Amino acid sequence: MNMESPPMKLVSQSAGQSRYGALAAALKARIVAGEWPPGSALPAEQTLATEHGVALGTMRQALALLVDEGLVKRIHGRGTFVCSGLTGAPMLRFFRFGDGAGEVPVSRIVSRQVLAAPAAVARALGVGPGDATLRLRRLRSLDDVPRLVEEIWLPLPLCSALQDGDTSAWGDLLYPHLAAACGVHVHRAVDEIGFGQLNAADAKALKLPTGHPSAVVRRQAFDLTGRCVECRTTRGDANAFQYTVFIT
Amino acid sequence: MNMESPPMKLVSQSAGQSRYGALAAALKARIVAGEWPPGSALPAEQTLATEHGVALGTMRQALALLVDEGLVKRIHGRGTFVCSGLTGAPMLRFFRFGDGAGEVPVSRIVSRQVLAAPAAVARALGVGPGDATLRLRRLRSLDDVPRLVEEIWLPLPLCSALQDGDTSAWGDLLYPHLAAACGVHVHRAVDEIGFGQLNAADAKALKLPTGHPSAVVRRQAFDLTGRCVECRTTRGDANAFQYTVFIT
Repeated sequence: MNMESPPMKLVSQSAGQSRYGALAAALKARIVAGEWPPGSALPAEQTLATEHGVALGTMRQALALLVDEGLVKRIHGRGTFVCSGLTGAPMLRFFRFGDGAGEVPVSRIVSRQVLAAPAAVARALGVGPGDATLRLRRLRSLDDVPRLVEEIWLPLPLCSALQDGDTSAWGDLLYPHLAAACGVHVHRAVDEIGFGQLNAADAKALKLPTGHPSAVVRRQAFDLTGRCVECRTTRGDANAFQYTVFIT
Repeated sequence: MNMESPPMKLVSQSAGQSRYGALAAALKARIVAGEWPPGSALPAEQTLATEHGVALGTMRQALALLVDEGLVKRIHGRGTFVCSGLTGAPMLRFFRFGDGAGEVPVSRIVSRQVLAAPAAVARALGVGPGDATLRLRRLRSLDDVPRLVEEIWLPLPLCSALQDGDTSAWGDLLYPHLAAACGVHVHRAVDEIGFGQLNAADAKALKLPTGHPSAVVRRQAFDLTGRCVECRTTRGDANAFQYTVFIT
């Protein structure tokens, strides 16, 4: 063996797993371990095939599996890239406020505290109850009208870079800032829609009467490794709620 | 040419359309025309390829396109079938009533009238304002507790088979009955979720106070040809509303 050539990455295939399935799992492990960070390009298919000692066709099948999983994407003529996290899924898609369709609402952090995680937050984040977490309250406005009030919980020390400094420099979107400041990339999220009434504080923030009907969206956001990196509750006027589901 | 052999189905290919794209369109036209009704099997791939004068591989590509469109499905070892319409998408998926998860609610038609279509209904159904439509009010219960109240509008004469006869014989699901009685197959639907307050009649039906917050789901259902065959408004207790959206 030529001492200069890199060692071949062995793929262990479990019972019932196809050769390319096992290969996909091995590639996923390398991505999750951070070998190729979100947004970066994977090596050429032939290079990867050689590294893993498989035929080019098998490598392509494995990569196709990772595309289906939403872990990587192919850009024609440029190569294969690790998905760089959620760009879409804004909370505003659940509402129709008349004006400002498609606009990014202006965000203002109105409070920031390090708090012991309440039981429900700890469960959502997968941390111990009472573990230190960062709680943000954020107000989102369109045309200077406050529309959404959010309570955002982030695990510490993972997101400790957000504990200090001027929040007005964060910009209007949390995820790009979370990626830049903490290296945390949101890969997928789950939004649970419910209904409730505004408490006094939220009503005041939204300039609505206490007890006004509100839509309540509870989000858990996850990184590539499947770890919950954020839980959030968003509230807005129920009368402005409108969401379309397509069934085929 | 042997006079006994069936004429070859010519496929006209428009500019920019692939050969199998044009073929898929031709097959779709045959399905929409009712040559193979929903639920029925398509002829063997080789038979279809011969009929259309194309290679087997081209026919397979065309069929794959129709699978992607949700028009046909392949059942391994059995063949290709025209999709027989929506089976899922129950309104109950938008609610958590505690008990009866996954159950089909018991349906009761509480009124049935032939009415001139109001403007909004006419627009949704794609008929003229004032055209004759069948309006049903339906109450859906779980464990004898009324949970959902529905207003269902159906176009006439398409659904005239539902105008007469005993509604208690319809069963709890509308779409299978619509298919059996009228030959109308619901292929896809669009549900628009909003919130509102119950009027006196709906509140009484649901045994809730007038003005109680309600989730409002407005549905348009379409057949294979893209024609709207039903519009419906479903209302239920907003406090029981719960719907999860996955974002990747």
